[in-house]
Parts: sequence; structure tokens; C-alpha cells
Amino acid sequence: MTQLARAALLAALPFAASLARADEGMWTFDHFPSERVRQRYGFAPDPAWLDHVRAASARMAEGCSASFVSPTGLVVFNHHCAQDCIAQLSTARRDYLASGFWARTQREEVRCPELEIDRLDEIRDVTGEVAASTSGLSGPAWEEARRATVAGLEQACGGGDDRVRCEVVSLYHGGVHALYRYHRFQDTRLVFAPELAVASFGGDPDNFMFPRYDLDVAFVRVYEDGRPARTDEFLRWSSGGLEDGQLTFVSGNPGSTEREWTVAQLEYERDVALPERLLLLAEQRGQLTEFRERGPEERRIAADPLLELENSFKARRGMLEALLDRDFFAARVAAERALRAEVEADPNLREAAGAWDAIARALEEQRRIHRRLWWVGYERAFDSDLFRAAVQLLRGAEEREKENGARLAEYAEARLPELRAHLLARAPVHRELEILQLTFSLTAMREALGADDPFVRKVLGKRSPRELATRLVTRTRLGTDPAGLAERRRLWEGGRDTVDASRDPMMAIARLVDPEARAVRKHFEEEVESVMEESGERIARARFALHGTSDYPDATFTPRLSFGAVEGYLEEGRLVRPFTTVSGLFERATGREPFRLPASWLRARSRLDPSTALNFCTTNDIVGGNSGSPVVDQRGEIVGLAFDGNIQSLGGDYGFDPAVNRTVAVSSEAILAALEQVYGARRLVEELVPGRGGGRAPRGAARSSSP
Amino acid sequence: MTQLARAALLAALPFAASLARADEGMWTFDHFPSERVRQRYGFAPDPAWLDHVRAASARMAEGCSASFVSPTGLVVFNHHCAQDCIAQLSTARRDYLASGFWARTQREEVRCPELEIDRLDEIRDVTGEVAASTSGLSGPAWEEARRATVAGLEQACGGGDDRVRCEVVSLYHGGVHALYRYHRFQDTRLVFAPELAVASFGGDPDNFMFPRYDLDVAFVRVYEDGRPARTDEFLRWSSGGLEDGQLTFVSGNPGSTEREWTVAQLEYERDVALPERLLLLAEQRGQLTEFRERGPEERRIAADPLLELENSFKARRGMLEALLDRDFFAARVAAERALRAEVEADPNLREAAGAWDAIARALEEQRRIHRRLWWVGYERAFDSDLFRAAVQLLRGAEEREKENGARLAEYAEARLPELRAHLLARAPVHRELEILQLTFSLTAMREALGADDPFVRKVLGKRSPRELATRLVTRTRLGTDPAGLAERRRLWEGGRDTVDASRDPMMAIARLVDPEARAVRKHFEEEVESVMEESGERIARARFALHGTSDYPDATFTPRLSFGAVEGYLEEGRLVRPFTTVSGLFERATGREPFRLPASWLRARSRLDPSTALNFCTTNDIVGGNSGSPVVDQRGEIVGLAFDGNIQSLGGDYGFDPAVNRTVAVSSEAILAALEQVYGARRLVEELVPGRGGGRAPRGAARSSSP
Repeated sequence: MTQLARAALLAALPFAASLARADEGMWTFDHFPSERVRQRYGFAPDPAWLDHVRAASARMAEGCSASFVSPTGLVVFNHHCAQDCIAQLSTARRDYLASGFWARTQREEVRCPELEIDRLDEIRDVTGEVAASTSGLSGPAWEEARRATVAGLEQACGGGDDRVRCEVVSLYHGGVHALYRYHRFQDTRLVFAPELAVASFGGDPDNFMFPRYDLDVAFVRVYEDGRPARTDEFLRWSSGGLEDGQLTFVSGNPGSTEREWTVAQLEYERDVALPERLLLLAEQRGQLTEFRERGPEERRIAADPLLELENSFKARRGMLEALLDRDFFAARVAAERALRAEVEADPNLREAAGAWDAIARALEEQRRIHRRLWWVGYERAFDSDLFRAAVQLLRGAEEREKENGARLAEYAEARLPELRAHLLARAPVHRELEILQLTFSLTAMREALGADDPFVRKVLGKRSPRELATRLVTRTRLGTDPAGLAERRRLWEGGRDTVDASRDPMMAIARLVDPEARAVRKHFEEEVESVMEESGERIARARFALHGTSDYPDATFTPRLSFGAVEGYLEEGRLVRPFTTVSGLFERATGREPFRLPASWLRARSRLDPSTALNFCTTNDIVGGNSGSPVVDQRGEIVGLAFDGNIQSLGGDYGFDPAVNRTVAVSSEAILAALEQVYGARRLVEELVPGRGGGRAPRGAARSSSP
Repeated sequence: MTQLARAALLAALPFAASLARADEGMWTFDHFPSERVRQRYGFAPDPAWLDHVRAASARMAEGCSASFVSPTGLVVFNHHCAQDCIAQLSTARRDYLASGFWARTQREEVRCPELEIDRLDEIRDVTGEVAASTSGLSGPAWEEARRATVAGLEQACGGGDDRVRCEVVSLYHGGVHALYRYHRFQDTRLVFAPELAVASFGGDPDNFMFPRYDLDVAFVRVYEDGRPARTDEFLRWSSGGLEDGQLTFVSGNPGSTEREWTVAQLEYERDVALPERLLLLAEQRGQLTEFRERGPEERRIAADPLLELENSFKARRGMLEALLDRDFFAARVAAERALRAEVEADPNLREAAGAWDAIARALEEQRRIHRRLWWVGYERAFDSDLFRAAVQLLRGAEEREKENGARLAEYAEARLPELRAHLLARAPVHRELEILQLTFSLTAMREALGADDPFVRKVLGKRSPRELATRLVTRTRLGTDPAGLAERRRLWEGGRDTVDASRDPMMAIARLVDPEARAVRKHFEEEVESVMEESGERIARARFALHGTSDYPDATFTPRLSFGAVEGYLEEGRLVRPFTTVSGLFERATGREPFRLPASWLRARSRLDPSTALNFCTTNDIVGGNSGSPVVDQRGEIVGLAFDGNIQSLGGDYGFDPAVNRTVAVSSEAILAALEQVYGARRLVEELVPGRGGGRAPRGAARSSSP
């Protein structure tokens, strides 16, 4: 990772930065470095281009990116983004992860229980308002003032309309605050999804790898008032091919990066947070893998959580390896030293001078309490959807009695519509899986805090973790069956007295642990988090004063645009070419999971052009959250969908290495070929490329899997 | 861990060391610091005392310590040391881990398939011979010369007698070489073991914890020529109590410590070896935990491997945490700097000056190849007893054709008797578990090396890991049923041609992977291991020249004696008292695993003196391998059996913290009380304390569980 180290090192030198960083950057649309793109690639997106691409882009509230691809609400993103929905719509008799899904007619489009698509409609700078409200404060007072201001701004912006989502976003770690207003599409219906076997061909072994052969695509449609929503701004589908070296833009919502973190924060991540999390994920993975062997229904219900878990494990493992790279870490240390020297040399930046040490001290406290914070404060001891519903009902009642600004952040007025929708969604709950996960988390809590810890004793009493988990999950009436949802609605709407009167065992355990959970979290927020954020903002203001918006802010799961090009890379001395083809997919298939192609593809083989580009990689700078992002060419047409990064990109949270960090995408061309030749999805093709889908479906194209 | 850091820091200053280190040290019997013990405790063991304790001590070949406690071959150690044997003697109908085992008559004593007890009979210094043979050599030549010398010395010492085990031991990392001659007791029969539920009361949550409440004891008897062996040197059983502050000695075989490792070696351990291993263990633990839920027989057969795995996981996790402690690590860095300065200042020690950098360079290569070394070189991709048997048969045939000194170390002439005995032992093989473990390791190999790695492709072909594992395990004829053992014997005795002609699928896969496994291992031995050992010896000679035997050598699973005292400690400001009692055990019992007492104890409760000391902790310095060690008082009588260290002792591999590092032991008094009042094991009591076991068994004492 010497290249990565070098890049990070150069980043420490302010004047060399813009030259050295190549295609690095997750730029906000309002500070996009068009001139830099022109210098490198001979094309500069103008304001109209930028506005159009931004308006046609979207995000999935739970954490993916997407785009509109027709004027009647058609949205494209990744299969792995739609995976929860697909699993939720499946049953023991009809497994859409296995069979794929295709709504031949619009009437067959079926609503996803929890999938929300958000479109950004407005950004307003509120830096001054936030800064004024916290000026001169620190610690708990700072934390309270900021929370109240943010809640007030968001509430005023949304105005109680549950089709609007307003969020105050902190860019440059507080260097800038902006109020983002989104339009929420809550009625989102599944249109098309291929079989998991081809969407995630290669499974965990191929995840984060390139060359790659995945058809990681799904289409949904947003509805309003029971009809397809009008989406005038949408991206056109390119039916042309891509070329090596071609300029590409990725428009999406990178989740979070820590490129501006201090060394102390990186050390905490490397030595505490990542190892602890990885060990938990590894154990859960072993357990889920074995759970699947119990039988076909267990295999089905474990598929979605296992995919998510394995992805999380592999990603975090790559992040840990990046931080353990000694050259890389040394470069971060050097970069911090350089910035501190700049700050100390400038009398105007004095307020930032003590910030690094303040963060380091706060992290000492976090090291002391981190286990209790995780298991008690964040209630991770109770890994159960049913428990989380109980907590939301309990706290929902408690918090709604308070003034908006004084509530826990996730119960602020502007957040309630989403919370309520989630609570009342008809997503299936698999009780066997709930018992497995709750048993695991209770056992892990006992392991982390010790069998003699008073909290552990209070929770378990004389029961074993499995006994308690089984009892809670089987006896609670807070399921998502009609009776359970009715009870949830009764408790949500009934308020404090109704909730307090509930004898449901899940409500009872939520009540039992709530005071301590709140206390631990409050201690953390006051003694650790607020110190880190406040100090982080001081550093950010200093950095912003020195470099301004010539640099991009760390990712915040808000719309960003990156530029780059189709480009291979060197791996252990060997050139990795930037394209894979349909013929490569067939060659890689062994007939065994996770390299087993679905029957639809085996039948369609002769109809497909083997040379069609299937996946490609580019130098665009993306991270988790970008999944589903449209890759667009300079005409603003979709040439692919980003669905992954290569293994070398996993250090991307902490720094970008232009030599080997690559975005991995599925080509628009391959998607079109699959829709036409494998799935006979003419209606969809016609909507994407008007005039093209009119022909006859090929003989032998797959039958629809309508619900 | 500030105390630990301080201790290690002081250890860097040669003159302060003896004062600061308190009870630290795993001393060889021939350099025991009796005078230091007298100064601290007013008693100095004399040579006769030392000779007696050493001669009455023993070790279990697979990795535990033990002692003789009667003249007729009775041996005591821990239940967890006998656990493999107890599991191997169990069947679906008769589970001795659950029920315990007690041979009411000598005829009921039943042979453990693989348990070997070794008694050290002689030590000879061979430093000169080893040094002479490698003088002036380096790299592969050094490695070859040393291996040939060691093989020759061991072979000459054993002389083909399979009741003798000879091992060249490298003390002070090569500062001293000694030839150890052991008497091997291979016919070892189980006499008594309590139920696992009380032997490991508290299970994984209480493991490495104190206060503690375990009856972790088992008795076996060594036989020769079908009769109990004569063991004239044995330790007497103390029936008296222990007192706070009382002097204690622990005689045992600490497995290995890395207190003399360089900082580069510790970094490799912290950043690479431990994290990778822990992630594997965590995943396996999740898998085995869930495998147990399949049914009672799965629960039974998974019990023993799961206990072992959880122990290994918790121990390594503690080791990683010690290395991640920044103060502790900084102290090690300072200590190394101090030693290097001493070396550089002394012209006589010049040969050591470059050793640290040579080790660091070798570790760079190890970082590059470590995954391939683990999965291919050490064949960890094949976690299966059946596979290991196939490899031993294959390599046994190949290696025995070579000269003794040119063989892989584990096939040297002196090692063959043990290898053959192991191969032909009637230990059960659980095929379901074999498939589980082999599937896991094949999958993990694919994950580590990548699905496109040529070795991975050669092994898996188009098969999935589970498919290949199932095929190999179900089709091989190399099981441990009578037919399988006969086939193993035929292949072992038939030599190269017979082995080459075998079409057994496990032999076939062993043959397939053998060349690459050997090549990877050879590369590692020549480019990494030999450099580290040779350089380590240079440092060791320098350290030895500076400090001599006033310091103890790192642990080598050879007889050592430590001194200390019964003593509590402070934990988060709270005093942990050094004793627990029988009444505490009953109070802690919840009726749920792992805090469920067996019925025998619940029935015996009224007969037991609640104030009897059950477990205690001492300041003795021990590590893994010491399990089962007798804790003796100054009269040389057994007052307890060491079975664990507290959680603070887990950094003991890298340094000793006298403030909180504690040995955890079960008291001889409690063992006696249990034998008498819970198990009615009069025959055994009479043998331990002649004259005491004559009385009547109490009413209601447990019935025997004879085979």
C-alpha cells in the first residue's frame, strides 16, 4: 500500500494536493471542480449538467444510492439494495431471492414494506445559525444547544409534512452546516430483480474483487396517491458501449469517510472498534452459516442477513488492514503533524490548537466505557427487531412528551414520520432467527461485561441467554402479523399511560433496561461525543480556513459527484483489465454455489453476445452508500451502476489510492441485454429505451415470477 | 495495565530487575533462585527438596502438567487435561463428560486412547555440540546442520526404545541447549473425573476469572506391562488448609512465552498473527455453538472441541489486549532499546548488533507469505483428523526413506514411536464434525487466498468446499474403526509403494497438496524461521552474556518451578480475596448451564462443610501448559492444583505483572472433601491419604459410573 501512503502523505502538503490527488474526491454538487476535470479529461460539466444529474439522482433512506430512469417514477439501483425488500416479499413457497422477480404488467408491481426513496430538492446553508446557537458553549451545554437548534431547523423546514424529510448536515466536520430538504417516496414497488445467483454471482468470495461478473441491478417504481409518480428529471439509458479511458461520473451518496479524523481517532478505530466488531461479526457469521444447514426454510430466511453480515465483515476487515499498514498509518501521522504545525503557526487559528489533545482525552474515556456503551447504551445486547420495536414504542411515548429540542435526536419531530412508518411496516419477523440473534447478543453481552455485572444480572436473572431469548420472542405480541401491528399502533397512538400499562414481555424488558441505557448514552454524549465533535469542528474550521472548498468534505450520506475514468490497475505485478464480459461469466460458472448460474441464463446463453461488457472498473472515488449510483458519461447518460469497490478500495474510508482504488460497476449494456435476452422484459426495455422494447420476446425467455 | 508496564520497564534495567520482579519467573530446577525465596519468604528449598519435587512431577505429552501422588502410578492433574480422553471414552449412550467417571475397583480403570504421561529422568547440556555444528553457518545451511545435529542427539539418546522420549530443548532462545530424556507412560487409565458441570463450573463466562468455583481435577494411573507402574517419587496430599500469604510453589511445564521477543516479533503477533487467528476462532466458535443445537448427540460430540476452542479464543484475546495496551508496548520498546544500547556498547557482543534488523526483515517476508504458509504450508486448509492421518501415512513413508537428519523434524527417528501410537489409537472420529470443520477450513482457505488462486483451484476444482469435505470424509477408509486402523497399519508398515498404490480419496488429496505444502514450508524455514532463530540466538547469547542465569529462560514446555504466595489483588479499586468456598459455589449456581450444579452435588450439599476453601489464587508465574501443576507448600505436599490464570494473567506470554497476575488453583482440601462426601470415592481417598479412606461411604453418595 505504498501508493496509498504516498497519496496520503502528499495530501498533507496543501499546495501539492490538487495535483497529486488525481481523481480523488466526493464532491458536493455546488463545489464541483469542473475546471480540474476539464484539465484532465477535456470536458467540464456546466451548471445545467450538474443540476440535471443531481435532480435525477436519489437515495434509498436505509443506505444506498439510486436514480430515476423514466418520467413515470422508474428507479434503478442495485439488487443488493433491494435485497431486504425482496426477502420481505418472499415466503417459504415463493422465494424471490432465488427465482428473481419481474412484474410483466404495472399491476403486478408490488409494494416494498420498508423501502423509501428520497430525492434532494433543496439545500440551505445554516452554518451561521448553528454556530450562533453554540457560540461560547462547551460540553453538555454545547451538545444541548446544538441538538435544540438542529431539531428546530428540521422541524420548521418539514412543517409536519410526512412527504418531506429535512436534515441538518454537517460538512467538513462542522466547517459548514447545511439544511437538506428531501422529497420522500414511501410507496415504492418492486418492478424487476434478477436471481440472487446472478446478481451476486461469486458470492462472498468475489465480493470486493475484480474481475467481477455480477448483474447487480434492480428496478423499483415510486408511487404517489396510488399512481406512478411523475419524475420529470431522469437519466437516459445509454445503449452504447464504454471505452477504456473514457470519462465517467458517479452521482451518489457516499455513507461516511474518516479521512479527516485525527490519529487518536484512527488508533481507537484500529485497536478497539474494528477488532471488537470484527470478532462479533465473525462469530455471527459462523453461527448463521451453520443455522442455514438446519433446512431449506432456514437457508432461505438466513440468506439476506448473511449476505449483509458477510459484506460488513469483509469491508471492515479491509479497513482494519488499511489501518494496520504501517506506511499508511505513518503518512497519517505525518499529515496530522503538518496540519498542527500550520495551525500553531497561525495566530488566527489558535482556537484549534488544543483540539487534538481534547479528542485524545475523550477517547481515553471512550476506551474505558466502550463495552458498556455498546451493549447497554446502544442496547446491542438485544439484537432483535421485536426488541427494537418495543424500545421505539416505549421511548416514542416518553420522548413525545418532551419539547422537540430536548428529545433524543432520533425522536425529534422531523424524524417521527419515518419512525412510525417503520414500526408499522408489514415486514416479516422470523422468530427462529430472532431467537438465534438475541441469544447471541445476550451471550456476548455477558461475555463482555462479565457474569457478575449488575446489569447482566438484572437482565438475565437466573435464566440462560437462550432461555430468556426464547421466552421473549415467543411470548411477545409485538410481531408484524395483523394483530401485532394493531397492538403496535395502539401503543404508539396511546401514549405514555397505554405504554406503561402494557404487560408484554418485550415491553417489560425494554422498560427494565431503559434507564441504564439512557444513562450510559448520556454520559457518552456529554463526556466523549460532544467533546470530539466540538473539537473536531475546531480542527475543521482551521482546515477550512486554510484550504476552503478546494478540498471535498468527508462523506455524509448526501449527494456527491465524483469524476474518473474507466481504467485497469496493477495487482502483484499483473495488469487487471477494466472490463469483464458475458463469456467470462459463463466460463467462471462451476455449477456450485456461489458460482452457479440460474437456469434462465443457461437457457439464454446462445442468444447473448459473449463479448458484451458485463462489469467494469473506474477510478471514481466512492465508498459504502454509493451502491446503486448511476455511472454517467459526459452526455449525462447512464453507462453503468456502481455496485462495489475492489479490495484495494477498502481503505477508502481513511484515504484514496489513485493507483489501485477502483469503483466496480455493471454496464448499462449488459443490463439491457439481460432484460431482452434472458428475461424477456420488453415493457421495461421500452421504458428505458423508448422504441427498443417493442419487438417480440425471444423464444424461451423466462416466464415472469409475478406475485 | 500500568503496573504491568512498570514491571516490564524495570525489567529493562538489569540491576533493578531482581528487586522489581517480585515472584516473577518460571525457573529451571537447576538454577532455582532459592536465596531470593529465602529473602522474601524465609524458606529456601534445598537440592533434595528440589530433586524430589521434580522427580514427582510429570507432564502430559499433549500439553498439560501433572504429578504422581502414590507409589503405584496414581497421577493427578486437571479435568480439562483429561477432557479429550473422557470424551473419547464416551458414546452416545454413556457420556462421561456429563456423568463423570469413577472406577470403584482397579479393574474398572479404563485406558485412555491417546493420553501419554512423561516423567523427566535426565538433563544433559549439549550447548557445545549444537553450537559447534552450526558455527559459521547461516540460512538454509544453518537450518540443515542444526536439524541434523538435533535429530542425531535425540536418536542416540532414545536408542530406539519407545518408552523413552528425548528432546533437545533450546533455553534462553538458544543461549543454552539441553537434551531432556523422559520416561514415557503410554498406558494411562482413567480413575476418576467429576462431572464437567462442576469441573468447569461457570463455563466460558468464568474461564480466566477469579473468584472461581471449579473442581478441575482428574486422576489417571500409569501402567506398565499391564500393571500399575511403580512411582517411588510422589507428592503427599495435604489434608490441611491454606492461609493467606502462605508460600507456594508450582511445579509444571509452562508451554511457551515470548518475553524475550523483539519488538518486531511482538508487532507481527499484534497486527497479523493474533487478529487473523482470533477471527478464525470466533467464526468456528459461532459455527460449533450452532452445530450443538442440531440435537443431543451433536451437543455431546461438540462439547470437547468447543471447550478447547473457547479457551483458546479467550486466551488469545487477552494476549492481544495486552499487546494493544500502549503503555505495555511502549515499555517493551524501551526495554529493547536499552538492551540494544548495551550490546552496541560492548565490543564482545558485536555479533548480536545486526540481529534485530535481520529479524525485522525476515518478518517482512513472513507478512508477505503468512496466509500461504498457514493454509498451504501447514495444511490448515484441511482441518480434519482423517486428513492429518493421511498426511502422516504419506510423509511417514516418504521421510523414513531419508537419512534421519534430513527428514522433516516431526518424522525424525526419535519422534516415530509417538507418531505411530497416535496414528493407530482407537480414538473416535465424528464424521459430522469432521465435515463441518473441513468445510470451514476449505472455505476459509478460499477466502484467504482467493477463488482464483491456482492452489485453491487445484484443491476444489468445480466442487464447493462442503461437497469436497463431505466426499472425502464419507468415502475415506482411514477411520479409527477396526477396519480403518488395520488399513492405517497396513499403510504405515507397507512403506512407499503401498502408500503410493492407495486409492483412498484422503490419501489422494494428501498426495495432491503435498509438494506445494512442502515447498511453502521449506521457503518459510529457510527464508524466515532460520533467520529468526539464528538471529534470536545471537540476541540470546548477548543477553545471556550480560545477565547469565540470574534470569529465567522463556518457557519451553519443560519442567519449571515458580514461587509465590496466596494473595488477593485489586481490581477496579475493589479487593479480590484469594479464596472461594464451597458455600460460594452453591450460591453461584443458577440451575442453568454453565452455572448448573450436577445432581451429585445438590444431594451432597448438607454433608459438605460450606467453609471449605474451594479455589484460591497465588502470585506464582505460570502460563498455558502449567494446567494440572501441583501447588506445593514448603513441606513439598500438594495443597492444590493450578488450573488457570486470572484474566490479568493473559498478557503473561509477554510480561508478568506482580500486582495482578494470579495463578488460580483448586484446593487439595476441596478435592478430598468432594471425593469423600460427594463421590464416596473411598478407594481413592485411602490411596491419597492412607488411613483416611477406610470409613463407610456416606449415605446417598453417588453411584459409580463405571464403563
